[in-house]
Formats: sequence, structure tokens, C-alpha cells
Amino acid sequence: MNILIENALAVLPNGGKDEIGRHNIYIEEKIIAGIDEEPQGFKADKVISGDNRLVIPGLINSHTHTYMSMMRNCADDLSFTDWLFNTIDPIEAELTPEDAYWGSLLGQIEMIKAGTTTFNDQQMHIHMVTRAAKESGMRAVISRGLVGSEYDRSDRRLTEALEEMGDGKDCDRLNFLLGPHAPYSCGPEYLRMIADVAAEKGLGIHMHIAEGAVESENMERDHHCTPVEYVRDAGIFKNHTIAAHCIRVSDSDMDILKENNVSVVTNPASNMKLGNGFAPVPAMLDKGINVCLGTDGAASNNGQNMFREMGFLSLIHKGVHDTPQCVGAKEVFKMSTINGAKALGLDKITGSIEKGKRADLAILRLDVPSMMPNNNLLAALCYSANGSEVDTVVIDGQVVMEDREIKTLDEERVYHEIRSLCERLGLDKKSY
Amino acid sequence: MNILIENALAVLPNGGKDEIGRHNIYIEEKIIAGIDEEPQGFKADKVISGDNRLVIPGLINSHTHTYMSMMRNCADDLSFTDWLFNTIDPIEAELTPEDAYWGSLLGQIEMIKAGTTTFNDQQMHIHMVTRAAKESGMRAVISRGLVGSEYDRSDRRLTEALEEMGDGKDCDRLNFLLGPHAPYSCGPEYLRMIADVAAEKGLGIHMHIAEGAVESENMERDHHCTPVEYVRDAGIFKNHTIAAHCIRVSDSDMDILKENNVSVVTNPASNMKLGNGFAPVPAMLDKGINVCLGTDGAASNNGQNMFREMGFLSLIHKGVHDTPQCVGAKEVFKMSTINGAKALGLDKITGSIEKGKRADLAILRLDVPSMMPNNNLLAALCYSANGSEVDTVVIDGQVVMEDREIKTLDEERVYHEIRSLCERLGLDKKSY
Repeated sequence: MNILIENALAVLPNGGKDEIGRHNIYIEEKIIAGIDEEPQGFKADKVISGDNRLVIPGLINSHTHTYMSMMRNCADDLSFTDWLFNTIDPIEAELTPEDAYWGSLLGQIEMIKAGTTTFNDQQMHIHMVTRAAKESGMRAVISRGLVGSEYDRSDRRLTEALEEMGDGKDCDRLNFLLGPHAPYSCGPEYLRMIADVAAEKGLGIHMHIAEGAVESENMERDHHCTPVEYVRDAGIFKNHTIAAHCIRVSDSDMDILKENNVSVVTNPASNMKLGNGFAPVPAMLDKGINVCLGTDGAASNNGQNMFREMGFLSLIHKGVHDTPQCVGAKEVFKMSTINGAKALGLDKITGSIEKGKRADLAILRLDVPSMMPNNNLLAALCYSANGSEVDTVVIDGQVVMEDREIKTLDEERVYHEIRSLCERLGLDKKSY
Repeated sequence: MNILIENALAVLPNGGKDEIGRHNIYIEEKIIAGIDEEPQGFKADKVISGDNRLVIPGLINSHTHTYMSMMRNCADDLSFTDWLFNTIDPIEAELTPEDAYWGSLLGQIEMIKAGTTTFNDQQMHIHMVTRAAKESGMRAVISRGLVGSEYDRSDRRLTEALEEMGDGKDCDRLNFLLGPHAPYSCGPEYLRMIADVAAEKGLGIHMHIAEGAVESENMERDHHCTPVEYVRDAGIFKNHTIAAHCIRVSDSDMDILKENNVSVVTNPASNMKLGNGFAPVPAMLDKGINVCLGTDGAASNNGQNMFREMGFLSLIHKGVHDTPQCVGAKEVFKMSTINGAKALGLDKITGSIEKGKRADLAILRLDVPSMMPNNNLLAALCYSANGSEVDTVVIDGQVVMEDREIKTLDEERVYHEIRSLCERLGLDKKSY
């Protein structure tokens, strides 16, 4: 389908300056085929009026666990270890693949409704996330969480992961990474094996690193190094790596991340909620590390709304450093769009509104109180928007949401299935 | 009008436990006339179905400056002193009363859309806030910002304030306080005069106290005391006082606030945005201080959405103190409802769903992703909701919003006027 978005305010990169101006955007099938300049022979099947609208690149949620949306609000106000080992892990052990499918759809609905077009997911049952993303229309980068201790190329989880990746072959919106879970759940030999397999197969890495204090303390006690050094020494960073969290990182850890071109995903809400503190985002930006933004899973956030997350990211570091100039709206916008695309190796495809890229766009209403007056709209995205301003979402040229109605999925059916499986799994035990 | 909200999940106080159950709520004119028990001779003019709905007490925004909504995003990423003295004060000096009226309406629309039913406002042109609140249908507590240095009962601002309060006499949704602005803008003799006038007239006090580092440093240098001690010594606390911010408060300052029954309004987003840090909310709660929640004005927040604010409040202290148990959802709910009502002297009237109180309610959709699964709904209000779940708002028994459409105001007209006045005032100079 060909779409013309007519005479709309849009954020265009303009050499990294992210400037807002009024433009016509021409979409041919999956591609942004022209901006202001009409492609030869273009005929619009659909015209979207730019009246009172702002077009932004679709947001990129660079670290989440979509199926955990079914576990929203069932493990609140717990310490990280209680939360993970005593609450979440036992629930995950009970999940069927079908549960993972419905849970992932719930997370994807919440993301689409708040303008996210691409997400980076790590979890089990990746063939079910694949199935869900094929249906929702979202762009996804998917990795199975891997844990182990031996250098064993026949490791069951790895074998299943490589096999399940095959399900995504027929859909070019889907990409796959290897997902060694974390320094505390992967022994050095296991990590070395994953690093080798990734290098052989040309796969990137998605890993949690330096999330909590206990992780760093145990690493120092057992291996006399930091989590970042531990992962580097296992050879992981010889592959394109995206590292979630990086809260407990020293100055020299940050140098290691920079030298190895590791992208860092910061997850402010989840990090606060689990009592893990604040990642040193201003220092990482100063060092030139590619920092991007993620929600983490809904068991610890508890939302999948990137606008909420942009609000947190843009404010907490000003508070922590008593500095209102710290982490400004323009930086947050980049972390939520193009930096995420770079981290996922997708910056040729998505993350900005440019001719030749895939049409991954969110269209926001400007005639709503949180965007009024329509002055400094990049600031409005961070400092007052809540995500409900998003009206229409286009992913890979497909209109996935229009007038806030999701076109690709039956929302009611998803909620019905979520209610049933929560009852079966006892997740409603905290109920009213 | 009589309204029945039929078979809806609702948060009832149940002796401070805030429990959620399924109830019929009967509203007769302005009053909650019965819960589950139908009042004699009750005849509903309107029935609101409780299907997939959660009823909560309307939220109370305990500190804001509504007309500053017109200044949203025109003074971002500045130090507190640059922000106030070099940017906001000069804009305020240019405002006409009519500007204040439209600005306040913009703020009130944003509040209603996210379930706020009562706000506590301090600014100039209070007859215009009064006019706006009469039209919007909101419950408001209003004070004019007062600054001065002498003990002068004929002070122009005070005289005007007392006179303009008269405009609210015919509307029992409106209450008035005296608003000495801040320790740094009110001399000790001026404060003493305000304290005396308040006592004579039986008016409470609404004041900014201990917002920034410079305020505390200057106070120590010039008066050898803390801002809290300075205000106490001027006799302000002999009146019912609501103090906004209280960020830079010592342990002994907090004891003074507690001993004097001063309510504290915390404003997390504004405090972070201006680089003023984090108020010691957990310590204040431990001391038994009545802490409530506010957005502050949109020049420093920049939203007027209490759900966004509840998200900040519920997470930042967990991050600051590395403690996931810190400031839980139940506490945040109280700070956003009944504690605000107590601070404003309105707890007999609003702040909870109880028979005999005024019908100030927000009704949220539960068939939306941020509330799914419908397990632990108090947690969902803080940790995943964004405010757009609010579907219907009832204030003083009047349906002020239904299906997200505001019934009392012409939204389009307000936006039109805001666009014009921003152009006139040059607030669009930061525009795209």
C-alpha cells in the first residue's frame, strides 16, 4: 500500500540535529520513498492528514521481556533476588509456549499503543514471540535467554534457540541474537562457548550486565573482577553486543564498553523498582558510549510504555546530579530512536525518518493538553507526553494502529486469554 | 442528578486499608448517598456500568500553578534561579488576567483527563482561576502568591487577594488560603503580618519551603537558620499550613513540621527537572508527617498528570535508597487522595469513597493493556497506568468527563486561545 502523510510536522534527523518542520512523507510499500519530493508515478492508496499531528520515528524499546506482561503487578516491592529467584523464576518454569505467545501479544499491544515499533526481547519460547510479532506487525529482535556453565556446543538451550530462530526466516521484520543471560547465571566457559558460536554464525549478543550490587560483590569474591571484565575476558565483546542495565560500572568498566563498541540499554523504571539504583548515564554519554533506552519486562517496570520511560530517563539524572542541564530532551529522543537502531544493527533500516528507510512511524495528536502549546515538541515528548497522544502507528509500511485501534490483532481476545491463563497460573492470587 | 455506578470494582478506605471490591455506588445530587445500600426512594437519572471499570476517589493535586500550563516547554533545562528569575518571572509580568484564565483552563483540562478532581493552586489573578474552576467544575483551593518585606496590612497584593477571594463565595467547590510565596521572597516582618491576618480571618497557609540549595545557603548566611525555622519563627505555623517541596530539610526541620501539623506536598518531577534533588519522603513518612503529592506548575513539570507523578513518586525513592520496599503503592495512593484532602482541610468532603462525602470520582477502564491482568490494581495505578485509562470523571456529583470527552468546557476553544496568547507573548519563539 502507498501512503501519503500530508503536510505534517515531523522530526527529521538533519545531520543529527533532529529538527521539526512541516513535510509531506511518501511511503511506497515498506519504504519511505520520498520526503517532500514525490516519487515518480506515486499514487497514494491512503492519505493521512497532518493537521494537528506530529510524526516521529517509531520508538525502539531496546530491552524487554514481552511475555512478562502477564506477570505485571504480581511481584512488587521485593528485593532483586527475592523477585527473580523466588517469584519470577518459579512462574516462568510453569509457562507453556502458548502462555508465552499471549503474554508477548499483551506486551506488544501496550508498546504499539504508545508508539513503539521495534523491540529487543529476551526470554524463553522464542518461537512464540516470533509468532506473536509476525501477527502484530512489530519489528523485533529476539534472543533466547541462555544459562549454563560448561563449554558444551550441544547445550540444550542453545540448540533449541538456534532451531527456533528458523521460524523467523520468512519475515524480514525479525532478527535474532544470542542471549547469554547474565554474568551471574553463565559460567566463564559457557560464555566462551557462546562467544565462539556467535562469531561463527555472525550473530550479535544481548546480555544483562552489572544490574545489581550482589552481582558485583559475588563477582569480586569469586572471580576478582567486575561483571564487565568477566564478560570481556570470556570473549563476548568480540561480537556486536548490546548490554542491558550497566548500573554498577566503574570508570574503567565504561572505558571497556566504549573500546569494544558495546551499546548500553538503560532501564530506569525497572532499575529503581528493584532497588538497583541509577545507571551512570551522563558519564556513559560523555564517554561516547551508544546508550539507548528500554522498559525491561513488565514484571519489574511494570509498563511497556516508552513515553513513561522517556519521562523517567529525562528527569532522574537531573535529580541525582542536581543538574537541570543533565540528559536533555534531544539526547533522550536519540536514545529512544536512532541509538536503539544502532545498538540492534538496524540503523540502515529504522530509527529515523529518512528516504530509503523502512516506514516505522508514530503519529501523535497535537490538539491534546499535554502537547499544548505546540512550542518545543521534543521537550513535550519527554516532559509531558504520556503515550496516549499516539494516534496512528505505521510499521514496515503497514498501518498497525489507526485512531488508537489496533488493526492487526483482536485486543479483546488477547485480554480474554490473559485472564484465563493468569487464573490457571494463580497470578490472580493477589486479586481484589 | 442521581447517578448509580453499578457493580464496579472500587477502592474503599475500609479503615485505612484501601481495599478493592465490587460495589454499587449511589450518588444523590452532590453526595455519595449510599454504597451497596440503596438510599430510600433513590431513582437513578443515569446508570454507569461497572463492567471492566475501576472507581477510585478523584486524585488531589496538592500543589500547582495551573495557568503556567501556557508556559509548558518554554523554559527547559535551566537552573532554578535562571528558570524563575530570568525566564518565568518576566513572562508572568506580561500576563493579562484573561491569559491567566485560559492558561488555568488548559491546566484543568489536563488534570481532569487524568482523573484529578481537586487542585491546590497558587498564582496571581486568582479571580481568573476562580472563574475557570467555576466553569470546569473542578474543586479548587486557591491562593494568591504574596511577596513583601514590611509588616504592612495595607500591602497591595494582600488587599487584592482578600478582595478577589470574594469571587468564590457563591461556589462551595472553592476554598481560599493565604499564599506567602517562599522564605526567599518574604521578609520576616511580612511573614509575621501574613501569619496574623491568617489567624484573624481563620485562613490556612500555602507556601513553598526549602525547595533549593541556594535558598538554604542564603538563609543560613543571612538569618543563621533553616528555611523551616525561619517560617516557624515568623509564626506562620500557628495557622493550618501546607508546605510545598521541603527538599532541603534536616531531621530537626522534619520534627518542627510534624510538631506543627504542617502537611508537606512533594513534587518529584518538578524537583528533579529543576535540579533540586529528591525530598526525604521516606523519612517524613516515618515521622508521621502528612505527605501528599503535587505536580507543581507546567513550567517546571511539565505535565499536570497525577498518574505520571504517582509513577515518579513510587519509583524514585526506591532508586535513591536502593530499597524496593520504599514508598509502596498503597502509600502513594494515600498521598494522592486522602492525605491531600487532609492537607487542604477537605477530608470531610473528598479524598475517599465514603457515604456522606461529595461524589469526587475517577472511573478507569480495566480492558486496556496497562491494567491487564486485573490483579493488583493499586500497584497498577502507580507502576503502569499513564492516566489515559481514566474514562469518566465525576466532581461534586457532576459528570465532568465521559468517554474522555470533557462536558463542561469547549476544549477546541481553549486550545485556540492558548495558541493566540502564546504567539502574542512570544512563547512560540522556541517553536519548530
